[in-house]
Amino acid sequence: MTEHICTSSCTHGISAESKKDVTEEFDTARRSFIRNAFVGGGAVSLGAMGVSMSPMSYASTGTSSNTVDADAPGPMHYYIPATPETVLWGYFSKIAKPVVEIESGDFVTIETLTHHANDDAERMVKGDPGAESIFHWDAQRKGVDRRGAGPMDAAIGAGGGAGVHICTGPVRIQGAQPGDILEVRIADVAPRPSGNPDFKGKSFGSNAAAWWGFHYGDMLTEPKKREVVTIYEVDARGERNWAKAVYNYRWTPQTDPFGVVHPTIDYPGVPVDHRTISKRDNILRDIRIPIRPHFGTIGVAPAEADIVNSIPPSYTGGNIDNWRIGKGAKLYFPVAVEGAMFSVGDPHASQGDSELCGTAIECSLTGTFQFILHKKADLLGTALAELNYPLLETQDDWVLHGFSYANYLAELGPNAQEDIYSKSSVDKALRDAYRKMRHFLMTTQQLDEDEAISLMSVAVDFGITQVVDGNWGVHAILKKSMFPARGRS
Amino acid sequence: MTEHICTSSCTHGISAESKKDVTEEFDTARRSFIRNAFVGGGAVSLGAMGVSMSPMSYASTGTSSNTVDADAPGPMHYYIPATPETVLWGYFSKIAKPVVEIESGDFVTIETLTHHANDDAERMVKGDPGAESIFHWDAQRKGVDRRGAGPMDAAIGAGGGAGVHICTGPVRIQGAQPGDILEVRIADVAPRPSGNPDFKGKSFGSNAAAWWGFHYGDMLTEPKKREVVTIYEVDARGERNWAKAVYNYRWTPQTDPFGVVHPTIDYPGVPVDHRTISKRDNILRDIRIPIRPHFGTIGVAPAEADIVNSIPPSYTGGNIDNWRIGKGAKLYFPVAVEGAMFSVGDPHASQGDSELCGTAIECSLTGTFQFILHKKADLLGTALAELNYPLLETQDDWVLHGFSYANYLAELGPNAQEDIYSKSSVDKALRDAYRKMRHFLMTTQQLDEDEAISLMSVAVDFGITQVVDGNWGVHAILKKSMFPARGRS
Repeated sequence: MTEHICTSSCTHGISAESKKDVTEEFDTARRSFIRNAFVGGGAVSLGAMGVSMSPMSYASTGTSSNTVDADAPGPMHYYIPATPETVLWGYFSKIAKPVVEIESGDFVTIETLTHHANDDAERMVKGDPGAESIFHWDAQRKGVDRRGAGPMDAAIGAGGGAGVHICTGPVRIQGAQPGDILEVRIADVAPRPSGNPDFKGKSFGSNAAAWWGFHYGDMLTEPKKREVVTIYEVDARGERNWAKAVYNYRWTPQTDPFGVVHPTIDYPGVPVDHRTISKRDNILRDIRIPIRPHFGTIGVAPAEADIVNSIPPSYTGGNIDNWRIGKGAKLYFPVAVEGAMFSVGDPHASQGDSELCGTAIECSLTGTFQFILHKKADLLGTALAELNYPLLETQDDWVLHGFSYANYLAELGPNAQEDIYSKSSVDKALRDAYRKMRHFLMTTQQLDEDEAISLMSVAVDFGITQVVDGNWGVHAILKKSMFPARGRS
Repeated sequence: MTEHICTSSCTHGISAESKKDVTEEFDTARRSFIRNAFVGGGAVSLGAMGVSMSPMSYASTGTSSNTVDADAPGPMHYYIPATPETVLWGYFSKIAKPVVEIESGDFVTIETLTHHANDDAERMVKGDPGAESIFHWDAQRKGVDRRGAGPMDAAIGAGGGAGVHICTGPVRIQGAQPGDILEVRIADVAPRPSGNPDFKGKSFGSNAAAWWGFHYGDMLTEPKKREVVTIYEVDARGERNWAKAVYNYRWTPQTDPFGVVHPTIDYPGVPVDHRTISKRDNILRDIRIPIRPHFGTIGVAPAEADIVNSIPPSYTGGNIDNWRIGKGAKLYFPVAVEGAMFSVGDPHASQGDSELCGTAIECSLTGTFQFILHKKADLLGTALAELNYPLLETQDDWVLHGFSYANYLAELGPNAQEDIYSKSSVDKALRDAYRKMRHFLMTTQQLDEDEAISLMSVAVDFGITQVVDGNWGVHAILKKSMFPARGRS
C-alpha cells in the first residue's frame, strides 16, 4: 500500500486517481433503492441488482411498537442476492451507494459469499450464478475488480487485497444518524448449497492456515512457512450438525488470469488451479466438527475514512469473528455515519475462539436480518446509552467485544490501516474488554465501580475472540441469568 | 525476598537458616502415615494430624483393574482435616513430610481452607476448630508461622507471603516416580459450613480486588489504587446454586498481632479488624452469581526447588485457577518427584475466566479425590505419553493449560520465583496453549501437524484462565464429541 498523508477527509490509502475509480464503480454499477418507491404487495425484483422485496408476512414478530411507525404499512422484507453489484469486496465504505434503503423494523435476507470459494471452485463456485458472477476472472476482466481498500493500481491486484471479505451491502437505514444505535437481529442463517449437481445437498467451506495465522512460522515440520487449505463439507439440508474434512492441499504459487503470481494467499479470490496442487484425502478422519454458522464480518461503516479495510474490527463492528454471532443473536452497533451503512460477509460454518490459523470454515451463508433503529434521544437511561462498540446479545448472554484498539482508525493516526497489523496484543484487548464490561455493568445494572470489578472477577468469562485480524479481540461474556430481578431497559 | 544464587539443590529464596526452620516444622509437627499400617475396618484416627481412613465402601466404582493390585484389599478412603499440621501455607514442597501415603486407587477426602477467611473471621473462622487453629495468631504465636516460600525472617512475616494459598497435603502416592502421570479424579466437592451458629447452614467467601489484580490502578474513581474486599454468601446445604454479595469494605492498613502494619493485602491471613473498616451493605443487589465450586490450586510438587511459591502455576499444576476443576473433573499431572506429593487448596465458590481483580469467591471447600497412578512404562502410545503440563478432562471436554512460561522455574533461571511476576503476557500463554494443543492432537488423535492446526482454528476455543498469578494462563477447550469413533486410549 502506498504511503499517504491523512487529512480530515482522508481515504486511507486511496489516491485521488483510485478514488475516482471507486466512485465510478459505485456510480456505474450500483443503484440506490428507496423503500418508499416499492411499498405494495408481492415480491418485486429491483432491477439490475436483483434485490427483491415483499411485505412482511410475519410482521407481528420481533418488532417493538416504539420502533415502528404505527401508520406505516408494516415492516418490509427485502432480499439481496450476492452479485457483483451488491457487494463490496474487502472494505466498508460510508460513501458507497446503498444496495437498499430500509426503515427501522424491516427485514432483509442477505446472501453472503465466502471469499475463499475459489480455493475449490468446483464445489463452491461452479453452477452458482451469483458466485460465478462475483468470482468471474478471465484475462479481460474480473467480476469484481476492486478487492480491498488499497490503490486500484496495486501490483498485486486492484485494491491491493487490503481487506478480503466479500461484504454484501451496504444496507442504508433511513433516519440513522451518528449517535444512534442500530440493532441487528439475526432471524435465520442457512448454508448456501453447492450449485454443482455433483454435490447436491452439500455445502462446502475452506479453512486456510495462512501467513497471517498465529501458528505461522511456529511449526514442527518443514517448511515452517507453508500455507495449507483444508476443504470441509457441511450438510446443506440442515440434518447434520457437524462438518467433516474432505481433503487438504498445500498452497502453491498461483498465477491469476491477469498473469500475476501469488506465492502466498496475498489477494482474495485468486482461482486455485487444482492441477498445480496435491490433494491429501482421508484427513481428520472420523472427526465431526460441530457447526456454528455465523457471520465473521458484520457491521456499519466507520466515520474516520471513506473506505476502510475489512480485516481489522473496530467500534463499528466489522470482522469481529465471534462464532456466537449466529441465528438468534442480536447485535448493537453505534451508528457512525448517516444511514448507518450496514454490510455483512465472511460467513463461517464454524470457528474456534481465537481463529488461530487465520480463518474459520469459510462457507457461504444466507442470513435474514431485522434492523431496529434506536434514536440517540431515546437512549438516555437505557442499556444502549453511551454504547461505543459492537455489543452482542444471545439467548443467555451479553457478549462485549474488546479490541487491542477500541477505535484503531482514530487512535493510530494517519497510517492506522497499515500500522494496526504490528501493534496488537491479547493483553491490550483484555484491557479494552475490562473497561467495556465495567462500563456496561455500571450503566446498565447501576453498579458502582467496586461492585462491577468484583462481579467481573467472580462471574464474567473473558475469551480470546481472534488473534489474526490485525486488531486482536477479547470478548467478555456476562450471563443474563445473574439478573433475575432486573429488566434490561 | 532476599537475593540468592541458584544451585542444583536450589531452594529459591530459602537461606540455610530458614531451611532449617522448614525442616524443623516438618519434623516436629508432621508425620508420615503409611497406608499399610492401617489396613482394616472402620474409620481410624491417625494421631496428631487427625487423618482418618476407612476401607472404601464404594470400592467398585472408579478404579480400573489395571491400576489396582488385585490382591490388595481394595482402595482405602482417607480423610484429611485442615489443621496446622496438615497444611503448607503458600508453597509446594518436595521435601515436606507427607500427611498421608496412599496407593493408586485410594480415595482421600480433603478439607481445604481459603486463605481469605480472616477477611471476615466471624463468618469464616469463628466456631470452626480447624480454621481457628490454622488462623490462630496472637502476640505470642501463629497457628501456622511460615506463609510463603520466602525467608522466615522476612519483615512482613515468616515466609514473606511469597505464596499465599493454604494447601492441604502433601499426599504421597506410593510408587510414583518422575515420568509417571498422576490422575486425580474429583469425586465430590462441598462448601464448608460456617462454624458460627449465627450463620448456620451458610458458607461464605471473600473476593479481594487487590493490588495484583488486572484492574489495579486502572480505575475510574479515586483512589485508583484502593483494595476492596467483598464478602459473598453461599448456601452450604447445596439447595441454591448461586451466591450473593453480603457487603464490601475498602482495605485499611491492618496491624497484625505481631505489630506489623499491612497497608495492602501483602501477607496472607492477616486478621482484619472490623472496627477499622466501613462496611457497605446492599451491594450487588438482586444479583445471583452462579456457583462453580472448584479448587484454584491443585497439583504435585515441582522438582526444580525444594519449596516453591504457590502463586505461579507451572507444569506440575498448582494455582491453575480454572473454574472447570470441580466435581466430576479429572486432572492429569506429570509426576516430577518421588511420591508425586499432591496438595490442594485455594478453594473457590466461583470464578470467571481471567480472575480479573485478583481473586475469586474464595470459599473453603471439602473435596473427595481419587488418585490413579499411571506408570511411565504403561504410557507409550496412550493419550498421556509425553504429557508435560496439567491436563483437565471434564465430562464434555479436554482442557489444556498453557502458561506464559510452561515451566517458569526452569526457563527463568535463578530468580524465577521473583522474575515471573514481570514477564507474563496473555500472548505468550496463548503461544504455549497452541503448542500444547497441537501436541495433544498429534499424539492422542494421531493427526499430522496440518490437520491439528486446521482443527484447532475451526473448533478449539481458547480462553483466558487468569492474568493475576504471575505466570498467566490460557486454556484450550477441545470437545470430546468431535471424536465419536475414537476412544481415548
